[in-house]
Amino acid sequence: MYREEIKVLDCTIRDGGLINNYQFTDDLVKAVYRSACDSGVDVIELGKKLAVSDEYTRDKWGKWNFCDDDDIKAVVDSYECDNPPLVAVMFDVGRVDMDGLSPRDQSPFDMIRTACYVPDIEKGIDLARRSKDLGYLTTINIMAPSAVIQDDLIEALVAVSKADEVDYLYFVDSFGAFYSEQITSYISLYKKYAPNKELGFHAHNNQQLAFSNTQQAIIDGVNMLDATINGIGRGAGNCNLELLLNFLQNPKFNAKPVYKVIQEEFIPLRKQIEWGFNDIYGISGHLNQHPRAAMKLRASKKNKDNCYDFLLESSKT
Amino acid sequence: MYREEIKVLDCTIRDGGLINNYQFTDDLVKAVYRSACDSGVDVIELGKKLAVSDEYTRDKWGKWNFCDDDDIKAVVDSYECDNPPLVAVMFDVGRVDMDGLSPRDQSPFDMIRTACYVPDIEKGIDLARRSKDLGYLTTINIMAPSAVIQDDLIEALVAVSKADEVDYLYFVDSFGAFYSEQITSYISLYKKYAPNKELGFHAHNNQQLAFSNTQQAIIDGVNMLDATINGIGRGAGNCNLELLLNFLQNPKFNAKPVYKVIQEEFIPLRKQIEWGFNDIYGISGHLNQHPRAAMKLRASKKNKDNCYDFLLESSKT
Repeated sequence: MYREEIKVLDCTIRDGGLINNYQFTDDLVKAVYRSACDSGVDVIELGKKLAVSDEYTRDKWGKWNFCDDDDIKAVVDSYECDNPPLVAVMFDVGRVDMDGLSPRDQSPFDMIRTACYVPDIEKGIDLARRSKDLGYLTTINIMAPSAVIQDDLIEALVAVSKADEVDYLYFVDSFGAFYSEQITSYISLYKKYAPNKELGFHAHNNQQLAFSNTQQAIIDGVNMLDATINGIGRGAGNCNLELLLNFLQNPKFNAKPVYKVIQEEFIPLRKQIEWGFNDIYGISGHLNQHPRAAMKLRASKKNKDNCYDFLLESSKT
Repeated sequence: MYREEIKVLDCTIRDGGLINNYQFTDDLVKAVYRSACDSGVDVIELGKKLAVSDEYTRDKWGKWNFCDDDDIKAVVDSYECDNPPLVAVMFDVGRVDMDGLSPRDQSPFDMIRTACYVPDIEKGIDLARRSKDLGYLTTINIMAPSAVIQDDLIEALVAVSKADEVDYLYFVDSFGAFYSEQITSYISLYKKYAPNKELGFHAHNNQQLAFSNTQQAIIDGVNMLDATINGIGRGAGNCNLELLLNFLQNPKFNAKPVYKVIQEEFIPLRKQIEWGFNDIYGISGHLNQHPRAAMKLRASKKNKDNCYDFLLESSKT
């Protein structure tokens, strides 16, 4: 597959940080940035931008949950390359440090991605507007579209369509619930109700479909694709960046630096934290459920593999 | 997805046995048979039917590599159900115990599946003919179509098409190399050159695409689908039966008994033998290579995760 317009966004640190409360070492984040530079990905997302509070402290929640300018500059300055990726950071509606965001020309960021559920869409669009006012590229990532009444989703799509300040509209398979035919069906919905927006796609691997659904999104015309190194990410994780770059026969991409950082950094990391497909996430994906119950079970050393018990419990009527 | 014509073949023991030289215990094979009965799969393949020789001894190669009638009868008689699955066994061209095969009405088997590479297609068809003469359902499983000159593959498809004794023609992604668009393209080739044959599909999971490619095969009209419990199988394994049954909304299927046998038998088995996707198989699949080098690396405790080294070595020009 080759299509010139396709862009890849590496959200390794941002989605991976959901597993370990953003406690990645500086060295790991710099290695991921180096890999992004060398592999030719278009955008790298280095964390979230939460507001610090008594509850949300840097120590407990990790510095990549706050992404202070200086911390990000230290990463970006650690490696020089000819075509560095754009740098993105994510906003969660309701917990945002808007005051900590300088105008784009004074900050290390290029893109602000706002994640929101359907009922919060206007709040999300408001954040995107304020980010656009500061000069940023913006995205709205509508979460969990598989679990809302379609009328409400359509209303949200129309709202995004009307907001000139939103550059990209993301279809996010939060629960890893979609099959490929449904990807096609939903993308046609997004195109119908937000025809003026460039679309993005963010997959989860609950049913081993993150990579294939990303392929399907490409076939259906989506040009902005999220992926993470080694598929790291909450629960069953995301689309594997290295598999995706292998698939995209675009000469600007190179999977080798990704495999290098996997061998050097992510194989050791796998001994500390878990991510990726397993039977439990397969069930929660099929049942179109939030992965929280699955993650809770995976944290139990004794019961983590009891997929039959989990299926019975999760299917109770 | 629901289509009445779809049939599922559980090849857990046959493809899984490639990992452990068919040294499954009787109890495990009986548990898999029970799961097949209760989950409603249409066919269960319980091993291969090799000829015993000084080299191929039962002790070393395991009894499910030979599938004597008495061994299979003991499995089938161990559990009663209203609609038991048909029982299949696999022939490898050149190592077959044809004399050990009784007529269908005197044997525990219903279906003989013959696996062959393209250059051996006439030998494969000959075995299918002799099996059909004994009353069996027959399949020809053409291996590694991703790695042959397409003219040769077409010649093989035409030969199978002319052989009335072949009931099913299988498209086998031996190297886990196909992407979904290529699945579509090859299935249209199989349909063009063997239009009179019912098609089957057998996936491998090297690039996390076994399940999604099986979905694609369904979309493209294939009605006979191979899968294994928990995706067990050589190298990266196969399409996960439980995910597939979840996807197929056919009331005759039930994934619960599969999850039960996973929890009770396959979770413990995973501590003894390895199968499933990892970085090494992802590379061999992308490079459209036989998994033997990847399997060899995975057997090395020290280097098994050195994906970058493996990529450099495998990509040497």
